[in-house]
Amino acid sequence: MTPDPIYEGVLAGDPRAVARAMSLVENDTVAGTELLQSIFSKTGRAQLIGITGPPGAGKSTLVDRLTGEIRKEGKAVGVIAVDPTSPFSGGAVLGDRVRMGRHFADAGVFIRSMATRGHLGGLARATGDVALILDAAGKDVIVIETVGVGQAEVDIARTADVSVVMLVPGTGDEVQTLKAGIMEIADIFVVNQADREGADKLVQAIAANQALRPAAADEWRPPILKTVATAGVGIAELWGAIGRFRAHSAHASTARRRTRQAYRLRELLSHQFLQHLENSLPAGELDRLIDRIAAREIDPYSAVAELMHGYVGRVPRSGPAGA
Amino acid sequence: MTPDPIYEGVLAGDPRAVARAMSLVENDTVAGTELLQSIFSKTGRAQLIGITGPPGAGKSTLVDRLTGEIRKEGKAVGVIAVDPTSPFSGGAVLGDRVRMGRHFADAGVFIRSMATRGHLGGLARATGDVALILDAAGKDVIVIETVGVGQAEVDIARTADVSVVMLVPGTGDEVQTLKAGIMEIADIFVVNQADREGADKLVQAIAANQALRPAAADEWRPPILKTVATAGVGIAELWGAIGRFRAHSAHASTARRRTRQAYRLRELLSHQFLQHLENSLPAGELDRLIDRIAAREIDPYSAVAELMHGYVGRVPRSGPAGA
Repeated sequence: MTPDPIYEGVLAGDPRAVARAMSLVENDTVAGTELLQSIFSKTGRAQLIGITGPPGAGKSTLVDRLTGEIRKEGKAVGVIAVDPTSPFSGGAVLGDRVRMGRHFADAGVFIRSMATRGHLGGLARATGDVALILDAAGKDVIVIETVGVGQAEVDIARTADVSVVMLVPGTGDEVQTLKAGIMEIADIFVVNQADREGADKLVQAIAANQALRPAAADEWRPPILKTVATAGVGIAELWGAIGRFRAHSAHASTARRRTRQAYRLRELLSHQFLQHLENSLPAGELDRLIDRIAAREIDPYSAVAELMHGYVGRVPRSGPAGA
Repeated sequence: MTPDPIYEGVLAGDPRAVARAMSLVENDTVAGTELLQSIFSKTGRAQLIGITGPPGAGKSTLVDRLTGEIRKEGKAVGVIAVDPTSPFSGGAVLGDRVRMGRHFADAGVFIRSMATRGHLGGLARATGDVALILDAAGKDVIVIETVGVGQAEVDIARTADVSVVMLVPGTGDEVQTLKAGIMEIADIFVVNQADREGADKLVQAIAANQALRPAAADEWRPPILKTVATAGVGIAELWGAIGRFRAHSAHASTARRRTRQAYRLRELLSHQFLQHLENSLPAGELDRLIDRIAAREIDPYSAVAELMHGYVGRVPRSGPAGA
């Protein structure tokens, strides 16, 4: 291919090229897709850590501290914040600069907040694209921070190589959180603000919840760690636990990476199909169809069937995998 | 069409038929789609109320009380709980029966919890389908409860006829919540647990946030209501505000209903396309493709382009809207 400054810049780990590349893919441009195509073969090296927890659990602080811990080993870190309730990703006013805090001057750290609004159904896709860019840019570890109480957000967390679930004592949400499906995606539990009252009770509640589930002798048993992220307490232990999980669960990681690719393929397919449809239909056609549905002149299922019949005609004998 | 007991039962408002119908659409069956096609012309009457707020804000209790208030007017109510952190929708152990509480014996109330796991990217679609069934079953008001911090969940809330955003004082999340995009979707604010310290401060913070945005003289200004849902305080006022918003914003409601249909159409299209693709490809083909992507032998963008090229060939001159 012809030399492309953004492509070359991303592979060289240049922060400005990385930021430009992210904007290209977030804005869903042709140049962005071409870039992803060309960098894809250079990806797959980075370790993805998903950190999820309720609003106010102190995720940003924990991620900041964990980043510092990983940097001690000289590893490059990328952070993706997907949290609509975070002042960082939610409020465009502050943005990544403030968020970066003490890592601002560190070339080994790149932080990106995902604007969760406006990615119509494409949050997971956009997050995956941004992670690929960080991967290609040579980040060894990519931390994805999600709020953990939305479907797309949970899907992102559970397809990471390791999934950390954060809880905080004393908010009254413990029981609710424990009953939610979020517990099942945890490889590691973190009880943050562990200096607050109720921390031990929360640890016990998680342990009791775990005890309900039978596990094979060689199966990974999610450890329950206590942290005080604001004071840096328990962060080295968290990074240690992540390492142990990685060593223990190489097999699980391979399966998750496959699941991640399966998600991505489905997302890309539906996204491309809708784009193709919108581009091929005469101008205003889709709008007229929506008007007719809103007026109950046609039901959406029949409308979709007709569109599908018209646009998805040929069924070849084999797809690209058979080539 | 031939008489179908579920179809007839739904239109007659029979709870067992409604529950059966919901299972059919949630399990994504052909019978479910056919049912939705046949009932669609009978829908569009119900008022959709979206209630969203962070975990632990007391949404379930507020919805329970609001349901009681609406029942006083003799209106039939449907409740859809989309909240992965709720013990009701999150924990299959308890289920709708416990949740219904004092409305269990009331035939005018139907409550459905959406299992947010397992609807791969289809949560908004499934919620929309369930709402249509409740609409066809004669529910006058449908309350959709979401946790409000996930993309799909926010999309659901913002396309309701009226969107209520709940906040609670003293959790330390106020500022974070205020900065998040969730503020922009509120037609009505509810400060629940208003007997707790910090309630007035929270009301002032919301008001201050509102004051930052200029508004036209005739524009709806979201009121900030105080409730103590556990004691039933402020519920009549909330129902009154919903009525006032409805009277004020008939125009806005029409636009939102159109947006809702546009969302649905897109969701159905991508869902149908993926289903079609999976059904048409030789067995195992998609799996092999995913393996090749995971092995970095092919990039997902090129794979999608090839699949699209093979399957989306014909471009007719006009779609069904032009008929």
